[in-house]
Amino acid sequence: MLEIFNHESVREIRLARPPVNALNAALLERLSNALDDAQTAGCSAIVLSGRPGMFSAGLDVPELLTLDRADMLRQWQVFFGIQARLAACRLPIVAAITGHSPAGGAVLALYCDYRIMANGNFRIGLNEVQVGLFPGPVIYGVLRRQVGARVADRLISSGMLLSPDEAQAVGLVDRVVEAGVVIAAALEWARHISSLPPLAVARTRALARADLVGLVANLSRTDYEAMNEAWFSTETQATLRQLAERLQAKR
Amino acid sequence: MLEIFNHESVREIRLARPPVNALNAALLERLSNALDDAQTAGCSAIVLSGRPGMFSAGLDVPELLTLDRADMLRQWQVFFGIQARLAACRLPIVAAITGHSPAGGAVLALYCDYRIMANGNFRIGLNEVQVGLFPGPVIYGVLRRQVGARVADRLISSGMLLSPDEAQAVGLVDRVVEAGVVIAAALEWARHISSLPPLAVARTRALARADLVGLVANLSRTDYEAMNEAWFSTETQATLRQLAERLQAKR
Amino acid sequence: MLEIFNHESVREIRLARPPVNALNAALLERLSNALDDAQTAGCSAIVLSGRPGMFSAGLDVPELLTLDRADMLRQWQVFFGIQARLAACRLPIVAAITGHSPAGGAVLALYCDYRIMANGNFRIGLNEVQVGLFPGPVIYGVLRRQVGARVADRLISSGMLLSPDEAQAVGLVDRVVEAGVVIAAALEWARHISSLPPLAVARTRALARADLVGLVANLSRTDYEAMNEAWFSTETQATLRQLAERLQAKR
Repeated sequence: MLEIFNHESVREIRLARPPVNALNAALLERLSNALDDAQTAGCSAIVLSGRPGMFSAGLDVPELLTLDRADMLRQWQVFFGIQARLAACRLPIVAAITGHSPAGGAVLALYCDYRIMANGNFRIGLNEVQVGLFPGPVIYGVLRRQVGARVADRLISSGMLLSPDEAQAVGLVDRVVEAGVVIAAALEWARHISSLPPLAVARTRALARADLVGLVANLSRTDYEAMNEAWFSTETQATLRQLAERLQAKR
Repeated sequence: MLEIFNHESVREIRLARPPVNALNAALLERLSNALDDAQTAGCSAIVLSGRPGMFSAGLDVPELLTLDRADMLRQWQVFFGIQARLAACRLPIVAAITGHSPAGGAVLALYCDYRIMANGNFRIGLNEVQVGLFPGPVIYGVLRRQVGARVADRLISSGMLLSPDEAQAVGLVDRVVEAGVVIAAALEWARHISSLPPLAVARTRALARADLVGLVANLSRTDYEAMNEAWFSTETQATLRQLAERLQAKR
Repeated sequence: MLEIFNHESVREIRLARPPVNALNAALLERLSNALDDAQTAGCSAIVLSGRPGMFSAGLDVPELLTLDRADMLRQWQVFFGIQARLAACRLPIVAAITGHSPAGGAVLALYCDYRIMANGNFRIGLNEVQVGLFPGPVIYGVLRRQVGARVADRLISSGMLLSPDEAQAVGLVDRVVEAGVVIAAALEWARHISSLPPLAVARTRALARADLVGLVANLSRTDYEAMNEAWFSTETQATLRQLAERLQAKR
């Protein structure tokens, strides 16, 4: 589900769950462990990458639709748990967005320090509303922190997906490069920040990201139950089941 | 003073108070009622439009200069009351900025979800300072939410008016189209958002706009009296009377 | 150390401490007095300018490295004291960034109302991290207010220096003009804002800048001691001494 590469002191964690790097609890737990490993192993920075053409399709909707309320609540805990770990990651982390990155895929990228996206016929964005999902205050807050209130409102209220150039224009990603060099560009970023005085970088990142950490910290059972309430609502279930059927038909 | 058009489920509310859609209490109260009507009539979205070449010239300064303190206080209540209703509007609302949109005209547009402006020799902006008016914390807050602190400070401290392209470049409007198609483009936006899962859109808009609602909610008599204090100050009255004389001379 | 020019009602305060306008306590105290003088002398606006090619190289690191803890604490008080005075300046103030403006040079410019930078092979930015310094919450807060969280995080975490065009693209400066006319352009800005109704401008600036004032107000001895703690840390001292040696070798 994950491939780990060491580029000298920079660790690349590559999402590798065919066919579309859909995020289920098993993948997210492995990602969480891989983040811990990189921090304890003395790495200098992390590259989070995906498969060619597909960074991550987001939450594994077909699998999640089979879960009961207790398992779905556990799923939310894992999904927001990985967000909290990314936010508080002690190492600089750069997203190498190797292709499509809707919904949960975009969420992972938003918690990184820097986002480099592959040029091409790819889409990125928080399209939750398009599939009947309420994105909720944490994901809205992280998007708004990234792109400002005006753009965040526009993107999230209609669930817009953007091309790489559009995403760069509004600040949803920081740089667009040819697909073949997206991981190399992310490594270059990671190596550069690794070359700076490490304590000054660490203190400055901790200061700058304190409110990002705060956005996703301290979620309670009540918050997760509210997510379940939305997930199991009639409109959301109907829209998600139509989506799952379309995905099934495409195979 | 208003013209109402139904484009299937989308309701267009067109400001129609010759010659310049100047905002007085009568027009703002009708607009408030029209917003209520659209929400209770089961419409899916609202287009707020103006006259060709003139969205709204803002508050009706010549009329307002005839008011005593009690009537002026009432005027502030109506003007900020319509802002509160636009902020809390349960339906997606798009501004079709058909032409000039200074001061109060720009204020109305800022509370919409999306702003499409007509290309041409038109100006938009919060030019209160240019005419001796203190814009106050609510309007500054709404502008800053829209364009960020740096641009908001620059625009509001010198009361700058911008061309459509300049307004788009700083995020004061979201899109610029030919004058002849500005209402059609707004309808297209309204129809698209009407096609999305309505409860997901409604919850997401409510989340995203909560701080916009909060900015203009709970204004007290003390706030309105402070606005009166500024309005009836020597510098403001002198500057506004010069403005009114220039407007008179132009006719 | 300072040159003062009166352009009718606009006062220009020019940093003039050869060779690089490095900021030490003596220069900052004179700047503080000059700001006071301009406000009490009835000037209408202030231009803060530098030497051709060098606005200010920031804190005088070689001199500061000779200070003991008590004198260094005093230095922080003076440096953040001038920031507090710039934030609360009752007159509109524009930075004429005549050349390089790293670290403390950029800090001074960030507290102005408007920033015009000379085109050319100059750099501006908060490069504290590059020289092992922790920029701290005040300077991060001022940068973030100016350019938003995404850009602020990116710039400050790696201590990036930008060209004039890059700085304008991210909002670190507001305008770029030919080096020969940067002071003239700043005067033009100052004269324009001086032509507007002064009380409306003053109230609006005070409103817009209230949070900027708040960011740097009320720093306590504990805050200054934390700055000392960072300054005298091993990594910071080692990196700063390497910098001082490079500067020495260049002469």
